Amino acid sequence: MPPPPTAALSSSSSLFLFPLSSYSSPKKTQLGFCPSFPFTKLTNFTPTRRLMTCSAVSIEKETLISHRPHSFLRETDGLDDGSVRSRFQRMIMEVQDSVCGALEAVDGAGKFKEDAWTRPGGGGGISRVLQDGDVFEKAGVNISVVYGVMPPEAYRASKANVTDQKPGPVPFFAAGISSVLHPKNPFAPTLHFNYRYFETDAPKDAPGAPRQWWFGGGTDLTPSYIFEEDVKHFHSIQKKACDKFDPSFYPRFKKWCDDYFYIKHRDERRGLGGIFFDDLNDYDQEMLLSFATECANSVVPAYVPIVEKRKNTPFTESHKAWQQLRRGRYIEFNLVYDRGTTFGLKTGGRIESILVSLPLTARWEYDHKPEEGSEEWKLLDACMNPKEWI
Amino acid sequence: MPPPPTAALSSSSSLFLFPLSSYSSPKKTQLGFCPSFPFTKLTNFTPTRRLMTCSAVSIEKETLISHRPHSFLRETDGLDDGSVRSRFQRMIMEVQDSVCGALEAVDGAGKFKEDAWTRPGGGGGISRVLQDGDVFEKAGVNISVVYGVMPPEAYRASKANVTDQKPGPVPFFAAGISSVLHPKNPFAPTLHFNYRYFETDAPKDAPGAPRQWWFGGGTDLTPSYIFEEDVKHFHSIQKKACDKFDPSFYPRFKKWCDDYFYIKHRDERRGLGGIFFDDLNDYDQEMLLSFATECANSVVPAYVPIVEKRKNTPFTESHKAWQQLRRGRYIEFNLVYDRGTTFGLKTGGRIESILVSLPLTARWEYDHKPEEGSEEWKLLDACMNPKEWI
Repeated sequence: MPPPPTAALSSSSSLFLFPLSSYSSPKKTQLGFCPSFPFTKLTNFTPTRRLMTCSAVSIEKETLISHRPHSFLRETDGLDDGSVRSRFQRMIMEVQDSVCGALEAVDGAGKFKEDAWTRPGGGGGISRVLQDGDVFEKAGVNISVVYGVMPPEAYRASKANVTDQKPGPVPFFAAGISSVLHPKNPFAPTLHFNYRYFETDAPKDAPGAPRQWWFGGGTDLTPSYIFEEDVKHFHSIQKKACDKFDPSFYPRFKKWCDDYFYIKHRDERRGLGGIFFDDLNDYDQEMLLSFATECANSVVPAYVPIVEKRKNTPFTESHKAWQQLRRGRYIEFNLVYDRGTTFGLKTGGRIESILVSLPLTARWEYDHKPEEGSEEWKLLDACMNPKEWI
Repeated sequence: MPPPPTAALSSSSSLFLFPLSSYSSPKKTQLGFCPSFPFTKLTNFTPTRRLMTCSAVSIEKETLISHRPHSFLRETDGLDDGSVRSRFQRMIMEVQDSVCGALEAVDGAGKFKEDAWTRPGGGGGISRVLQDGDVFEKAGVNISVVYGVMPPEAYRASKANVTDQKPGPVPFFAAGISSVLHPKNPFAPTLHFNYRYFETDAPKDAPGAPRQWWFGGGTDLTPSYIFEEDVKHFHSIQKKACDKFDPSFYPRFKKWCDDYFYIKHRDERRGLGGIFFDDLNDYDQEMLLSFATECANSVVPAYVPIVEKRKNTPFTESHKAWQQLRRGRYIEFNLVYDRGTTFGLKTGGRIESILVSLPLTARWEYDHKPEEGSEEWKLLDACMNPKEWI
């Protein structure tokens, strides 16, 4: 994967979509945010935090709200003005609804719990988590809208340094959906997807420097056991979504996915891949909006049939233990490498939204090695040596 | 904690004692290490790693051996020459024996499994792991001896820049013991300890720049439930060990411990502390060798009586779930903040030795908050607001 120029600012597989949100927003209140962080507006039983430790945390003030709003856009943006940001927000809200609806139907028992919040300078988010259902151990589907200001050195002036004047901070807008789904049955795979849209204003004091926008995202599958028909089905749906737009997309984004979800210290990928892209702006903007929409709408047909097929497969304690070991790998990737998670943890953010991507339970055995030729070995081999599935 | 000048090079709570080992040792073989990594000398069933991915990993070549040697020191060092390095090595080998013996006695059923290895340029290590015993879920007690070469910018020339000549790479020696003990019973606390000794040669091409040495280490307690008598007992033993040498040690190293094991994104400490120090060389070298020995010998009397007292306490599923949540915090600290672990993962090392510090199982619940005033709340409060226990 070519390291994107905005590496430190890009989000990725974390449910904390926008590391950028940790940069100051115009109306950000730095002083005195501690008493309202994280949830004391709703609950009063978190042990009191000492003020002296608060100063070490730089975090956007957020307020939990009792009802989700129709839109998180600033009023000045218009609510349904046909802009890309407005249409992208509508898309991710619809996808959150449709994915959650499909997952509740698969689960049969579990229901999503919703937390919604806003931020003073505009923006906000909706976290939905289904925990300990019949089928899903933990499933999170979050959307988030962020207005902020990025430091000038993070602004990608791709076209111009047409002035010697040093640009000031650059206002940005970001919106996205992010989800991690961990089923209970060790034969039903974990799924992650994340689609996001990003805009910066043109810096006012750097004439000629352009306004920027880009798309990022991906959908990837992390099984504990390989059912080739499942993996083929999953990748076929990704390819179908890609091929509607550009035949180069699937091979390029499939490889990008294999490269991104790499646990370097293990020399393993987290799972069996899918597609991943970031900083995508070298195509028509409308085309990319349609592409991101197509990808997000492909989540349910790519994933739900697999879970339906595997959710009741009988399993042993040994199968479950292997799934738990693979979940340990998932945690290692997310806490050590995932850009969104690590940046979010370091700079502050809604911790519960960031870490809802972690499975409910996981396991680390010393020096565990699956027997050669076993089903567990085959999975490990495929994580070490990514395959072409279709 | 004042950030020590060798921050990036210091080891800490990880069982991978020596990030420094990832710097090239004089006889390090970079090419062709992949076929022997990690364990293919002993086992042949790890899926073949592609050579192309190996080049991304920089790791010291190590060879597993069937019997532990008497010493890991280079022959040129002499085996029992009375040097500090030789006596420190003997001390950590004896402590490994005595701690493992005491733990097997407490456990009653579990036995430690031993892996020993050497490195071509001298040095090596012994990992001992007891997994799934009657009392311990996972207990690791590792020792390690490393010869390596550190980059000149990491060399702390505390006394001199007596020459304008830029110094070259600096040979170093490091040895240490590191251990994490996770009992099954949620009322029996997790323990970590780690004692290490470090020496550099005087750089040959920087006349006047001195030879350096320092000690580091600590012992800290991570319970899921507070029994005040246990915590007081544990801290009293630490204080007693410290007070034999300097009355300033306990308060200074107690605070350093609280500061080090800080999970910033949670604004919590990992546990209830103990003592921690690093880069200690501003006392008599013999005195500090005795101090480190005293601390290491205090592990058994500080910890074993607590485990004996709590190992059979009846508990509910709810107690176990809380212990599992706290283990999640342990993992968050080790993977995100612990200097030894993060440096080790990034630069290569014996992964199984690094990550044996992680508990066997852990849990992450979305938005879990203990009820105010509950025993779980009290633990969380003490992790947020470190107390003086004695």
